[in-house]
Amino acid sequence: MTILERARKGEITEEIRAVSEEEGIELGTLRERVARGEVVIPRNVHHHFRPRGIGKGLRTKTNANIGTSPDHQDLDEELEKLRVAQELGIDSIMDLSTGGDLDRIRKEILSRCEVIFGTVPIYQVVCELSRKRQPIEKMTADMLFDVIDRQGSDGVDFITVHCGVTKESIAKLEKEGRVAGIVSRGGSILASWMASNDMENPLYEEFDRLLEIARKYEMTLSLGDGLRPGAIADASDTAQMAELLILGELTRRAREAGVQVMIEGPGHVPIDQIEANVRMEKRICDGAPFYVLGPLPTDIAPGYDHITSAIGGAISAACGADFLCYVTPAEHLRLPTIEDVREGIVASLIAAHCGDIAKGVRGAQERDRKFSTMRKRLDWEGMYKGALDPRKAREYRMMSEDYGKDICSMCGPFCAIHIDNVKTSRDRKKAVRGEG
Amino acid sequence: MTILERARKGEITEEIRAVSEEEGIELGTLRERVARGEVVIPRNVHHHFRPRGIGKGLRTKTNANIGTSPDHQDLDEELEKLRVAQELGIDSIMDLSTGGDLDRIRKEILSRCEVIFGTVPIYQVVCELSRKRQPIEKMTADMLFDVIDRQGSDGVDFITVHCGVTKESIAKLEKEGRVAGIVSRGGSILASWMASNDMENPLYEEFDRLLEIARKYEMTLSLGDGLRPGAIADASDTAQMAELLILGELTRRAREAGVQVMIEGPGHVPIDQIEANVRMEKRICDGAPFYVLGPLPTDIAPGYDHITSAIGGAISAACGADFLCYVTPAEHLRLPTIEDVREGIVASLIAAHCGDIAKGVRGAQERDRKFSTMRKRLDWEGMYKGALDPRKAREYRMMSEDYGKDICSMCGPFCAIHIDNVKTSRDRKKAVRGEG
Repeated sequence: MTILERARKGEITEEIRAVSEEEGIELGTLRERVARGEVVIPRNVHHHFRPRGIGKGLRTKTNANIGTSPDHQDLDEELEKLRVAQELGIDSIMDLSTGGDLDRIRKEILSRCEVIFGTVPIYQVVCELSRKRQPIEKMTADMLFDVIDRQGSDGVDFITVHCGVTKESIAKLEKEGRVAGIVSRGGSILASWMASNDMENPLYEEFDRLLEIARKYEMTLSLGDGLRPGAIADASDTAQMAELLILGELTRRAREAGVQVMIEGPGHVPIDQIEANVRMEKRICDGAPFYVLGPLPTDIAPGYDHITSAIGGAISAACGADFLCYVTPAEHLRLPTIEDVREGIVASLIAAHCGDIAKGVRGAQERDRKFSTMRKRLDWEGMYKGALDPRKAREYRMMSEDYGKDICSMCGPFCAIHIDNVKTSRDRKKAVRGEG
Repeated sequence: MTILERARKGEITEEIRAVSEEEGIELGTLRERVARGEVVIPRNVHHHFRPRGIGKGLRTKTNANIGTSPDHQDLDEELEKLRVAQELGIDSIMDLSTGGDLDRIRKEILSRCEVIFGTVPIYQVVCELSRKRQPIEKMTADMLFDVIDRQGSDGVDFITVHCGVTKESIAKLEKEGRVAGIVSRGGSILASWMASNDMENPLYEEFDRLLEIARKYEMTLSLGDGLRPGAIADASDTAQMAELLILGELTRRAREAGVQVMIEGPGHVPIDQIEANVRMEKRICDGAPFYVLGPLPTDIAPGYDHITSAIGGAISAACGADFLCYVTPAEHLRLPTIEDVREGIVASLIAAHCGDIAKGVRGAQERDRKFSTMRKRLDWEGMYKGALDPRKAREYRMMSEDYGKDICSMCGPFCAIHIDNVKTSRDRKKAVRGEG
């Protein structure tokens, strides 16, 4: 029996127990949410690590994508990205490698991965075809399911599968037209294959076969949004919504088969449509955890898309999104460097935490209160320790004239906190002397 | 007669005409909004530059703070910050210098400033006292008004005056208690002075004197929030709201005297309280333009407060805030470097633009549509040109293997846009051949 089935039967599994302790959420409540599919605990039977939950009432989780590309292959660099990500407190890593020996890269990353580990299996399929100088259209359903099985047996905790890219949803896209077309790699590969072969998406048509593999390894399905908008002009359009409806239907089928599901979300979405996107996902997919990429509320900030994404991610999380995929400053421009990864991760940690404060996740506000108490005392060491990125905070101060002093070089002796503290201590003395 | 008075009499002033052209907003509508005080056009009679409006229906404006500090004085560096800011498209510069020859620094910056120029006069007062080794408590009302007059005669377009830090609002703050106390420099100076001398805030008590000087030079008053929250635990508390009520009262008095007014806002505010803060300001201050510092929806990200601030700023702008003060990565840590200023400015431009898309400001969505059309064509030169920071976008690409190619090193040949474009062109050919 899978976690989902055991939870449904009323069993408190070891995963549920671990997540309950971690998040301080009552065992029975958590079990119910897992049973209903509102919380998922992605953990492959072959990957051993402390389980983390994603979903309703839990801390918003963050994911960092790493991996080689055909034009940039350096395993050590990717392993260093993994190390940095885990050090900063990431909750999940996706290996999106498309260059080099993909099986080996995945195993190397997985063997060091102490957090949730995900992949997009179709990338490996087209890479292997490409190595044989075969075009995408030569892909077969068997190739796809073979790779999914291979990755499952390696210990992958969740896979992105673009099951909602179907003849029906693509027809909607083509009828309505779009500024940016299809911007999901998996989505574009499937749409191209389907058009060339005039066949339905095997991930949709043979969904039961997918469920069987997922069950075997206790892999969570992350139903990808292959038709997500890649420009704010395309946000929340007919194609995106048509795909979401299909994902809702598949969510129910997966749950019936005892397979955990989360739903991937856009993309490029203006601020005024973010809340609607979160609410629609929750409604159509019966409360399934929502895993958002961004969203980016503007298209025009290449080089700063970690910031754009932090804006959209924070708003999404505050509205109920459960899992944020980071975006780095290199998005739309190049494969991210280690420094890009660091910046992207911290931006997504900020977004997740801002969301958690707003939605009242246990302990979130308290963390800020504790930090600000240290700031009020001008306790710099305490602040470094409590900061989301202790290294950066200290480095910034070290580069200034006032490192080691109480105050900082922004205001110098005119530091408001310092002036206010002096006033308060003077007021207290007056009060003691009975002058207050 | 001031701009405000002339607008009220039905006159289309040259400032209103210029802003109307710039923003594509109908002349009569704009005149009415200026007359009602919903839009301000800060421009000192001695500062000559193309006027910019701030307020209802207009593009959200951004401000960058520059200036020396007692521990870091380098005029050339500050002038370079000004140059960078103007090149990136900032709308306003505040000179917050507190180190060196303040009159000279201000004049040098002002002589090169082609955007709105603001100051916080009380900083100069305490700096001049400090040079004479006098404590804050030796300040007099005359010193304060003399400096305000001097700055007005130099051509300052708007001044931040913390008129709402009064015995009444401070009593509220002391009664309720706070995690971070007073974090506004001006606010802490005034509160300290008031406590030492047991006197009321001269900017409140002699508000008519302030209005007289403001009228003389056509200076806009930016009513500062000296009691703004410096920790999210303190957000929207009694003290903050008590100060806002006072600012509402002063807004009405200033307008009666023909003086333009905007209101400064917090500070540190969790996401779920931002909209309420914007709506309360608009209600209590009769639609006066809202100038927000941040807000920061978390306290714990030193080194990344430009990102935190972009989150809060974007949400504020989307809810109706009119003017965003930038925050740099150096905030809370040190005086910003030129690079910090650049990062802070772009972050605030992103926030303002995301807000403008959401609130439907004319031309905002169109800019993204145009940009994404170029992205779909993989027109890199077009994208650099349309990007908020063209330099950064190009630099990022230049550091990768695929600079000069159509695709980028993120996905290489598996670029979704490329695959989708190939598919679309193949579909079109099929359709022409009658196979579609």
